Amino acid sequence: MTSTARSVPAGTPLGDAFHVYDTTLRDGAQREGISYSVADKLAVARLLDGLGVGFIEGGWPGALPKDTEFFARAAAGELPLRHAALVAFGSTRRAGTTAARDPQVQALLDSQAPVITLVAKSDRRHIERALRTDVAEAAEMVRDTVSFLVGQGRRVFLDAEHFFDGYAFDPDCSLRVLTAAMESGADVAVLCDTNGGQLPLGLAETVGEVIARTGFRVGIHCQDDTSCAVANSVAAVQAGASHVQCTANGYGERAGNADLFAVIGNLVTKLGLEALPTGARAELTRVSHALAEIANIAPDTHQAYVGSSAFAHKAGLHASAIKVDPELYNHIDPGTVGNDMRVLVTEMAGRASLELKGHELGVDLAGRPEAITNALRKVKDLEARGWSFEAADASFELLLREEIAGIDPTETEPVTPFELESYRVILDHDRDGSVVSEATVKVRVNGQRVIATAEGNGPVHALDAALRKALSPHLPWLDDVELTDYKVRILTAGGDHGTDAVTRVLVQSSDREREWTTVGVHGNIVEASWLALCDALAHKAMRVRTAVGG
Amino acid sequence: MTSTARSVPAGTPLGDAFHVYDTTLRDGAQREGISYSVADKLAVARLLDGLGVGFIEGGWPGALPKDTEFFARAAAGELPLRHAALVAFGSTRRAGTTAARDPQVQALLDSQAPVITLVAKSDRRHIERALRTDVAEAAEMVRDTVSFLVGQGRRVFLDAEHFFDGYAFDPDCSLRVLTAAMESGADVAVLCDTNGGQLPLGLAETVGEVIARTGFRVGIHCQDDTSCAVANSVAAVQAGASHVQCTANGYGERAGNADLFAVIGNLVTKLGLEALPTGARAELTRVSHALAEIANIAPDTHQAYVGSSAFAHKAGLHASAIKVDPELYNHIDPGTVGNDMRVLVTEMAGRASLELKGHELGVDLAGRPEAITNALRKVKDLEARGWSFEAADASFELLLREEIAGIDPTETEPVTPFELESYRVILDHDRDGSVVSEATVKVRVNGQRVIATAEGNGPVHALDAALRKALSPHLPWLDDVELTDYKVRILTAGGDHGTDAVTRVLVQSSDREREWTTVGVHGNIVEASWLALCDALAHKAMRVRTAVGG
Repeated sequence: MTSTARSVPAGTPLGDAFHVYDTTLRDGAQREGISYSVADKLAVARLLDGLGVGFIEGGWPGALPKDTEFFARAAAGELPLRHAALVAFGSTRRAGTTAARDPQVQALLDSQAPVITLVAKSDRRHIERALRTDVAEAAEMVRDTVSFLVGQGRRVFLDAEHFFDGYAFDPDCSLRVLTAAMESGADVAVLCDTNGGQLPLGLAETVGEVIARTGFRVGIHCQDDTSCAVANSVAAVQAGASHVQCTANGYGERAGNADLFAVIGNLVTKLGLEALPTGARAELTRVSHALAEIANIAPDTHQAYVGSSAFAHKAGLHASAIKVDPELYNHIDPGTVGNDMRVLVTEMAGRASLELKGHELGVDLAGRPEAITNALRKVKDLEARGWSFEAADASFELLLREEIAGIDPTETEPVTPFELESYRVILDHDRDGSVVSEATVKVRVNGQRVIATAEGNGPVHALDAALRKALSPHLPWLDDVELTDYKVRILTAGGDHGTDAVTRVLVQSSDREREWTTVGVHGNIVEASWLALCDALAHKAMRVRTAVGG
Repeated sequence: MTSTARSVPAGTPLGDAFHVYDTTLRDGAQREGISYSVADKLAVARLLDGLGVGFIEGGWPGALPKDTEFFARAAAGELPLRHAALVAFGSTRRAGTTAARDPQVQALLDSQAPVITLVAKSDRRHIERALRTDVAEAAEMVRDTVSFLVGQGRRVFLDAEHFFDGYAFDPDCSLRVLTAAMESGADVAVLCDTNGGQLPLGLAETVGEVIARTGFRVGIHCQDDTSCAVANSVAAVQAGASHVQCTANGYGERAGNADLFAVIGNLVTKLGLEALPTGARAELTRVSHALAEIANIAPDTHQAYVGSSAFAHKAGLHASAIKVDPELYNHIDPGTVGNDMRVLVTEMAGRASLELKGHELGVDLAGRPEAITNALRKVKDLEARGWSFEAADASFELLLREEIAGIDPTETEPVTPFELESYRVILDHDRDGSVVSEATVKVRVNGQRVIATAEGNGPVHALDAALRKALSPHLPWLDDVELTDYKVRILTAGGDHGTDAVTRVLVQSSDREREWTTVGVHGNIVEASWLALCDALAHKAMRVRTAVGG
């Protein structure tokens, strides 16, 4: 038996009156580059439920084997949901049969999802040219399938595909499809801008007109082909839609779907619509990044509300004003969506930005104009050669403290906790096809010369392993330090070949308490990685020294 | 003397009646990660002029040394413009002096730009709290500066900063600033959503109200903090604005600005506004990607209109319908903006997608269901291990032809044009700090065993050089083949360390006639690169064989 109790969203002040409906796992998975495993899908659903969305569309059971398995594992207890109802997506029955006999409709029932969203064509041209049937039969397919599923105790929503184009072309046909669904017991008529060609003013007008003509509960589903998916979704809500379909970070086919986080950010902070449980909005940034991690897509740094740059200020002009009055320059308080204001250190940064950044890092620059001047000059010089400190706070802090120590002899200069004599990395692809990386480092640490050799999966891994082997007996804190992320960016193709270019490496390290990021730049990817590794250790050594009482 | 002839846009059917105004070089340059050289700025301006925008804001002369130099070199003849007028951006005079005596205003004149855009605060809170003056003095600063510059023969636009927040808070104050500018001879009052907090319905209403109350010519400048910059810009035009400020690809501070390409795409294809010279819209995709290249930012694959995924179809459902009727599934013909429809090969792809893709690549799959089945299985298996064929058409074609040859003995199997025995790469960081990479390959080619050693800037470069040295005497076509791009993606952090992960490498090759992309995946970055290099040569060898008459 189906649990209908879970088919109504719990936990938001608005209850069933307003639906936040996520389709990351179905429509979002169509984005180029995304390939969710079943375990990924379960993890995504857990994060979305934790955030408090009302409905999670899990996939198309019966059509995709992974989706069938996802629903089976969810039904078997692997996906206990606190806030959301699980939704199975599927098509209305085929022409020339009945819903009860259609195996695809049966697969929807078998999924045990309490809610089913049926997609139906609502543009006469699609009905005639792609479905190769007539409007009467299309409406009958909707009526039969909705009635059957409602009769089986499911809550049903209708996704009216290509609705806006269809309504412009033949409004009566499109409304006939909606009516067939709603009269048969569907709860929401979701107007889909399937090819994403709409603009907000026109879309809002259509949504308002459909509601006025039918009195139906209307939902909205937008694609981003005009770069207006978020705007269109919000405009539809302003025009009366009370159910909004989105995907995490706007993932989806072609230009993508409406971004869940921007839509929620706008609904909550601009329209005052309490679409999430209390407290959940402070989780938006964390959940967005976690979902990007699972999708294995680098988070969009410039994403509205949740991007790492969304509240980052670079212009010297703004930075000096921000010192006076932060709320003059941010449209909302970044903390309300779990994000932070950041000041960027770049060659464009003025003295005020640098001072603010120093303050953020706990470096006292007051009364040290010369150190600021020198640090600005050095940043400018290094950035011209490919360095970037915007994402590498730890490397920037080292640079800043070096400049201070260069002027003020009472300050300690941060140092790499060893001296490199040389390293060698050997990579062998042998006759038997095996590939082996081996690195040897020769270093001085605590006055002793140490030579160590280690193997690794790749050249950088081997080098890191050899360095740890050499240093670990001398630096007791090293065992706590892990490299948690490693990013490579090829900057410019110099010379004749693409492989002959400058490489920037970002290394993220962790000691279980803190995470810090360092940068290295070189024509050789291994040397660039080495430089970032050295900065990572120098930064940790500085913290250790300070903690000991330096 | 200033050329005022160039201060009116030439080449669009709309002439001066509608302004496409680009501020990539000023506001766009504030994006985290962008750092334009003066040569970059000149190259950006040439591309924008070629596209046919009406105005190019080049920077803030007097405030940033690079911008001063940019205008000097433009004035010296390095930037002949066909369509656009060059614009210098600057602030109104300071409080307590006159425009004629303000060195910053003088720097605007010295730039010799025929058009000057002045930014002025138009929110009373900013005037009082950041500018620390009153509304009367703020209006006087505008009046004095505009009059002075107009008297010197310049065309002047006013950027009314934080206009929408200011107008909501104290409309009379905000209108007083606009009026001071327009009565002194400014041509356009540009309403700026500086902190990007607006939504389209409300913004359109304000724009309409301002035009109704003042009769001024109004422009729009939007930031993307609600993910609505494009929608807001287009809504403003629908409400009567006739001047729209954008940046290439939406580059800009925080979440960015309104994307020039999406705004133009919408104006031209949705509103029928001929905002670019005839023929220019087919250049949108090319210019967008070229500008990303100069900014050294990977193009956004999911960007509306111009992204490589903007017309890419992945879903099996859609792909089979597209075979019937492409226009049913795209909101515009991709060719009108210089883009292409693509079908993606992924594990989600059905047989129809694979067949379409084969057709696109010139591989005949008709009547070969078994080859399709095998290829689908292989794609699925490889993608599960980190491969991705979406961007690597050449590797996919090799896979497809291998499967066909495996079934049909009359078809030739593509082969790597040599056999690898082994390779070794040695990387030395020496005592003197120098870093050297050396590679040795042992291969069989044309029945001979060849050993070659070469150096390179990094391990992959050295390996490529050694392989070329070994093969070049035997494969005459190899000298035409270049590696033109090289991308590295770290896929998943396995094991304890970030450097211990699976690496995917994409290699783009060119033989001056064609470009093709291949992929390699391995735990070792050098081996992953090697696999992609081998595919690149196998693909070229296949073409050579076909051309010879195979």
